[in-house]
Amino acid sequence: MLEALKEKVFRANIRLVEAGLVILTWGNASGIDRSKGLVVIKPSGVGYGELSPEKMVVVDLNGNVLEGKLRPSSDTPTHIVLYRNFEGVNGIVHTHSTWATAWAQSKLPIPSLGTTHADHFHNEIPCTRFLSEEETEENYEMNTGRAIVETFARRDYLSTPGVLVAGHAPFTWGKSVDDAVNNSIVLEEVAKMAFLTKMLKSDVETLPVYIIDKHYSRKHGKNAYYGQKETLGND
Amino acid sequence: MLEALKEKVFRANIRLVEAGLVILTWGNASGIDRSKGLVVIKPSGVGYGELSPEKMVVVDLNGNVLEGKLRPSSDTPTHIVLYRNFEGVNGIVHTHSTWATAWAQSKLPIPSLGTTHADHFHNEIPCTRFLSEEETEENYEMNTGRAIVETFARRDYLSTPGVLVAGHAPFTWGKSVDDAVNNSIVLEEVAKMAFLTKMLKSDVETLPVYIIDKHYSRKHGKNAYYGQKETLGND
Amino acid sequence: MLEALKEKVFRANIRLVEAGLVILTWGNASGIDRSKGLVVIKPSGVGYGELSPEKMVVVDLNGNVLEGKLRPSSDTPTHIVLYRNFEGVNGIVHTHSTWATAWAQSKLPIPSLGTTHADHFHNEIPCTRFLSEEETEENYEMNTGRAIVETFARRDYLSTPGVLVAGHAPFTWGKSVDDAVNNSIVLEEVAKMAFLTKMLKSDVETLPVYIIDKHYSRKHGKNAYYGQKETLGND
Amino acid sequence: MLEALKEKVFRANIRLVEAGLVILTWGNASGIDRSKGLVVIKPSGVGYGELSPEKMVVVDLNGNVLEGKLRPSSDTPTHIVLYRNFEGVNGIVHTHSTWATAWAQSKLPIPSLGTTHADHFHNEIPCTRFLSEEETEENYEMNTGRAIVETFARRDYLSTPGVLVAGHAPFTWGKSVDDAVNNSIVLEEVAKMAFLTKMLKSDVETLPVYIIDKHYSRKHGKNAYYGQKETLGND
Repeated sequence: MLEALKEKVFRANIRLVEAGLVILTWGNASGIDRSKGLVVIKPSGVGYGELSPEKMVVVDLNGNVLEGKLRPSSDTPTHIVLYRNFEGVNGIVHTHSTWATAWAQSKLPIPSLGTTHADHFHNEIPCTRFLSEEETEENYEMNTGRAIVETFARRDYLSTPGVLVAGHAPFTWGKSVDDAVNNSIVLEEVAKMAFLTKMLKSDVETLPVYIIDKHYSRKHGKNAYYGQKETLGND
Repeated sequence: MLEALKEKVFRANIRLVEAGLVILTWGNASGIDRSKGLVVIKPSGVGYGELSPEKMVVVDLNGNVLEGKLRPSSDTPTHIVLYRNFEGVNGIVHTHSTWATAWAQSKLPIPSLGTTHADHFHNEIPCTRFLSEEETEENYEMNTGRAIVETFARRDYLSTPGVLVAGHAPFTWGKSVDDAVNNSIVLEEVAKMAFLTKMLKSDVETLPVYIIDKHYSRKHGKNAYYGQKETLGND
Repeated sequence: MLEALKEKVFRANIRLVEAGLVILTWGNASGIDRSKGLVVIKPSGVGYGELSPEKMVVVDLNGNVLEGKLRPSSDTPTHIVLYRNFEGVNGIVHTHSTWATAWAQSKLPIPSLGTTHADHFHNEIPCTRFLSEEETEENYEMNTGRAIVETFARRDYLSTPGVLVAGHAPFTWGKSVDDAVNNSIVLEEVAKMAFLTKMLKSDVETLPVYIIDKHYSRKHGKNAYYGQKETLGND
Repeated sequence: MLEALKEKVFRANIRLVEAGLVILTWGNASGIDRSKGLVVIKPSGVGYGELSPEKMVVVDLNGNVLEGKLRPSSDTPTHIVLYRNFEGVNGIVHTHSTWATAWAQSKLPIPSLGTTHADHFHNEIPCTRFLSEEETEENYEMNTGRAIVETFARRDYLSTPGVLVAGHAPFTWGKSVDDAVNNSIVLEEVAKMAFLTKMLKSDVETLPVYIIDKHYSRKHGKNAYYGQKETLGND
């Protein structure tokens, strides 16, 4: 069942290790088959060296395990809330990558300070609020997803495909699980660049809006001209 | 004698190199066979490229060498004091990993600023006091162990499995030597994240206690739900 | 056509990945055949794992594609403006390398704080102004090149073979594409060293001019004495 | 001539690359045969990938090349001054390693903030003065050596086997070229640790003298007890 998607989700998880974004058993990637409404996700607490496509777990959008001998990632309810609310999203990644996590621990959004950021995230990468004690004690992971959705109430999740969960770490998403991995790689890099920029110039201003818009639209949307014909404007 | 434990301790020492936590001959890992009261530890000053399971040294809890042609780590008396006082501990690791050592040199505890920390260390990672001149001149390594034990007089060493020795570097422990290595890896990572967070926001507050408790209990104790059935609540 | 140059430009692009200066599809290197007035450049948005010498694109100095099935780098007009104005330059590299980009995002030049810098860049590495809204909306990449040329109106592009584009990232150049790659490697390293120096001593002064001159002239010009006979004073 | 020493010096140069202390053609290692008064040193400006033991250059203590087709390192006169003045030294290494160079650019000594430092360098790692204009213009490299010797007029070069050259970068030495490489590795690591410590606590105090002395004497001198019998107290 969903063998091709399991393979993609497996490889996406491995890419997280190769890119230096996860250590030990931290982090997880998932993908969804929108036609069937089924999510493929990493099993919980399994080391990356022991992963294989067959060990991926299939769950429905109510969180029921439909296939797989292992328990799904403990963050599965967060992924499900995001898939339910962000309909254009087909892949989700969660890591504790170092520099992005430092911003999340600071409860500060990552400002758009350069074109590296603007090429991939149209605006600042926001940070959620802390969950309340009640939200933490019951349905914690589901409420984490809800806090992310709340953060995007007046933002466009497609053009800003990532978020910092306050005191926790980042989530990213994309039109495929591979795209979500790319966004995690970019998020970690812009988190580091923004940190270094702040250290050099504590009162640095964000990039002028017309440069932000130019760079984002070079790569995304109908007037995109970065890349080759088959990919232009696809993301 | 203790061949299986020697193999585990050997591999734990090699993992420290692979994880980038030690260079040259720095650092050491040990494991204990509680039924026999014997400790297996790295030999002193031997390069990691020359290590093998047979070169591990067996000592008893009085520090007598029972097997091995090489002298045990000069830090052996510290390990022994910890094994004598922390009865739930079966493995100990000492490194000079960069970011944790910077906190130790600053004589500052690592505050719990995020869930990465709370997932593995229930509270701040404390820093010992400096040893006095007398404690330094005689039985220095044994007194280092005693200062660590003193630091945990009102703390739970099982839920906070690591410490910074002031002006020196970290020690971690665990229910096995492999677990102690994992805790060294996590300690270095949370040391780096906490450093970066402090640079971004010097007055950052620690994570709300109810989130700290939630994360620690997701992974540890009888209500744990992170990981697979065979490991749940085991640590 | 231009097979030897395509091979060189291909290898220069790969060196950028190996040196850790680019990730994903970021960055591009080009070389020029001055006798023919033709430029060989990386195709746009193609991953480094899929590159080969045959995929390099040949353009003339008006930006017309003369050979290649793929679209050239979207930064091609910037390269062309530089080749037109910096006649001693035969290779150009653009990256978003982390530390140099942090300086570009800060809109600060990299001051000459040590001999590592002075060995390769005779003076500070300047930062351009921001483009205006008009310059950004039309012919953005060409105007980026013009802003670089403007920045060197009263500077020597041969002895300072690199620049920071404000809010964007660095460009470097050289007497060959391989030399331009070397300059990107050096630029990233001196950007990191200058950052760390500023953190240690915020009011650090630049290196005395006579030491700057000594180091630059040890490696470059007719009195150079660094290196072997065949390379002395060649750069 | 001196084939064994050439092999050792060659391997020492390669170790600098493997340890991440040099890039491009930066850095050089040398060794001396005290009985013959001859120095073996890396050739100038040759890439590490092209080095071999036969390419090492043999010079006497007056700087005359006795063997080798290539020109010796441009820093050879610095090495020679050090060999002439530091008679217990048999190997010398020069790098532009990142964190140590940042301290050199700041003209600040590296304070002894922890036992990692004290285990290898008995006191702070000093920084030279800047050379005068006259000293820079004539016999620059020889005068660099003299400024190092001057810095050690009231210091013990054997127990503090390294220095920062102001505005330039570090030199280290040792009882063998391999030992000098080890000291370069340690110097870079303690430079990074001291930097991070200063960032965490700008007014951090140096380690108490009795702990410094304890750690240095654990590893060095007649009462050393770190390591194995054959190496105890040898350095």
